[in-house]
Amino acid sequence: MKKLLLTGFVPFLDYTINPSQQIVQALDRQQIGAYEVVGTILPVEFAKSAAVLLETYERVQPDAVISLGLAAGRERITPERVAINCNDGDADNSGVQVQDQPIAADGPAAYFSTLPIRRMVNRLLERNIPAEISNSAGTYLCNNVMYQMLHYLHQRQLDVPAGFIHIPASHELAAQMKRSIPSWSLDTLTAAIHTAIEELPA
Amino acid sequence: MKKLLLTGFVPFLDYTINPSQQIVQALDRQQIGAYEVVGTILPVEFAKSAAVLLETYERVQPDAVISLGLAAGRERITPERVAINCNDGDADNSGVQVQDQPIAADGPAAYFSTLPIRRMVNRLLERNIPAEISNSAGTYLCNNVMYQMLHYLHQRQLDVPAGFIHIPASHELAAQMKRSIPSWSLDTLTAAIHTAIEELPA
Amino acid sequence: MKKLLLTGFVPFLDYTINPSQQIVQALDRQQIGAYEVVGTILPVEFAKSAAVLLETYERVQPDAVISLGLAAGRERITPERVAINCNDGDADNSGVQVQDQPIAADGPAAYFSTLPIRRMVNRLLERNIPAEISNSAGTYLCNNVMYQMLHYLHQRQLDVPAGFIHIPASHELAAQMKRSIPSWSLDTLTAAIHTAIEELPA
Amino acid sequence: MKKLLLTGFVPFLDYTINPSQQIVQALDRQQIGAYEVVGTILPVEFAKSAAVLLETYERVQPDAVISLGLAAGRERITPERVAINCNDGDADNSGVQVQDQPIAADGPAAYFSTLPIRRMVNRLLERNIPAEISNSAGTYLCNNVMYQMLHYLHQRQLDVPAGFIHIPASHELAAQMKRSIPSWSLDTLTAAIHTAIEELPA
Repeated sequence: MKKLLLTGFVPFLDYTINPSQQIVQALDRQQIGAYEVVGTILPVEFAKSAAVLLETYERVQPDAVISLGLAAGRERITPERVAINCNDGDADNSGVQVQDQPIAADGPAAYFSTLPIRRMVNRLLERNIPAEISNSAGTYLCNNVMYQMLHYLHQRQLDVPAGFIHIPASHELAAQMKRSIPSWSLDTLTAAIHTAIEELPA
Repeated sequence: MKKLLLTGFVPFLDYTINPSQQIVQALDRQQIGAYEVVGTILPVEFAKSAAVLLETYERVQPDAVISLGLAAGRERITPERVAINCNDGDADNSGVQVQDQPIAADGPAAYFSTLPIRRMVNRLLERNIPAEISNSAGTYLCNNVMYQMLHYLHQRQLDVPAGFIHIPASHELAAQMKRSIPSWSLDTLTAAIHTAIEELPA
Repeated sequence: MKKLLLTGFVPFLDYTINPSQQIVQALDRQQIGAYEVVGTILPVEFAKSAAVLLETYERVQPDAVISLGLAAGRERITPERVAINCNDGDADNSGVQVQDQPIAADGPAAYFSTLPIRRMVNRLLERNIPAEISNSAGTYLCNNVMYQMLHYLHQRQLDVPAGFIHIPASHELAAQMKRSIPSWSLDTLTAAIHTAIEELPA
Repeated sequence: MKKLLLTGFVPFLDYTINPSQQIVQALDRQQIGAYEVVGTILPVEFAKSAAVLLETYERVQPDAVISLGLAAGRERITPERVAINCNDGDADNSGVQVQDQPIAADGPAAYFSTLPIRRMVNRLLERNIPAEISNSAGTYLCNNVMYQMLHYLHQRQLDVPAGFIHIPASHELAAQMKRSIPSWSLDTLTAAIHTAIEELPA
């Protein structure tokens, strides 16, 4: 059986819950299509997130990698098309804040996702789950781990599908926040990621 | 056992599905707390919607009335605080369009909902379902039926709790639309209305 | 020459500037059509805002009253259709916070604006200034002063046009805020209110 | 005197006006800092937009290139950080629609803007004009011409600053549309682009 490395993040900023973490915990060790899910939760720190991801990759030697992250404010499941070579944005969980900084000094401007993102979106829509391809994973930790995973695989010429999927907030998270943000049930979020995983190459 | 008249609407404008209709169909004839639900689906026509509602009221003689409507674009369950004496907005399903027109020539500017809207919102939030009181039901058919029901009860001095709850789009509806709108699973929408009904006076 | 009482508010919440105040200062003492503008700036306090407004009304004895307020997040000029008999929302500038509280214990649920709001919107659109009628002035101080002014005039059977116009943020305010909100130039905001005033009955 | 090639687009989709075109017409032949502006209007066609841009580049031999485009829905001036090697989205003005298609079969995934985008944003904010760096120029013609210009310069190893700036709708455009979108005055839009041009290397 093939192995899928599925990652989520711990809570960050003023989000007290991170549904990406809950989805990974729900799907960990499940068999989905040809894959067994190996779940890992990443810190939200520029100095650590990708290091933990790449160490886990080397230990697990997965056949595919999907990283998940919360995109508070989005109202659809959004597989990301591209990761760019840039760190920027709010301070991370360790208080580090960077601006306009390359992720890899020698790296290209961007990598395209090698996940079947169009097939994932089409299948989600067939199942009445709102989804669309996103053209920006931002410049925070989500983009960072996506870029670093693809950079690692590219440098080693490894033909392992990898990429990132952003998810809306969960109802539980949205109900706790003062400002209004779109939200989904955790069940639907988890079912959506299950559906996306089914589209990985067998 | 008390009776709750619960109404939804048929599809309208470019919304091919109306989740308010589906929720009413799901809860019809259920017993929730002290109430048995009597479900009715209303047309989306200035000349007919309230007529159907009031005829149903007279036939059923319910102990409470909750009307539901789709608020595409909203991301929370929103019990409405107030209905205003005004018809305006897009053309209805029969092609009739009106502007700045009183609903009742002799009616007051507005009626407040007589549902326990604050308790409904508080209970929904306790159950991690995003909710907030809305201060505008608009000026289309949702506001129209809310105003007319409250006007009818006021004129007859009937002490029957009545009002309106707007709901977000369902995933099924949002997945069919080209433009992106927030959406919830039909299960969560239905559970939310179930929760709101539980707050009716016993 | 007729007199128009034009009011704005001081800054509130985390808005360090209130463009409604700047517009009133810009138009104060100007002659617009048949009216001379008498400008006044109101506090943002449930206990004081309407008191200052009504004292000013009694002193000035104006022939029309337009109150202005900031609606951060809106992207159009929005004359308000209706004020409702309810105080609710964030704490005011004195720290007072209320919920679901009537403004006037003996007052009706709502008053409609007596300004020519449809003509104002039509004229603004003709001049390529985005505008639309709003159906909710909220439940904070903006709604409060609109309701109290209309209640005062109604009780005294005074036939003085009165109402409220919400405005988007100014560029200066938006540029200072971390979160992104729509904004207009102060010049365009001021020109829009000038245009609205031109529609007052001569 | 140096030459700046400044481009806008003709109207497209249901936008009857394109403010990027109006800004270019307003600034054409002006001297701004060390630069004389040479304005050109591009078609909105996958088969033609970049061809017209590159032909104009070869004829004019400018010292810098800034392309402008309308981002209806945005509320800030947004210099773009990156262009990606992908065509996708709605049909263009000739009816051509493409999906997930590379712009340049042999090109890299992306190019970063070589304009001083951080300095532009900082200067705009200093002047109370809302601005921020955008991390996605989309996958329509705006991204297409930005990618193709940077690809052309990269292949020829030309050290010419080039990139793209997205602008909000103008009030004139927004006032004509049924759906509400954020908008600015054409004067402020033009002043903002003037300010951005002042930040080009002298």
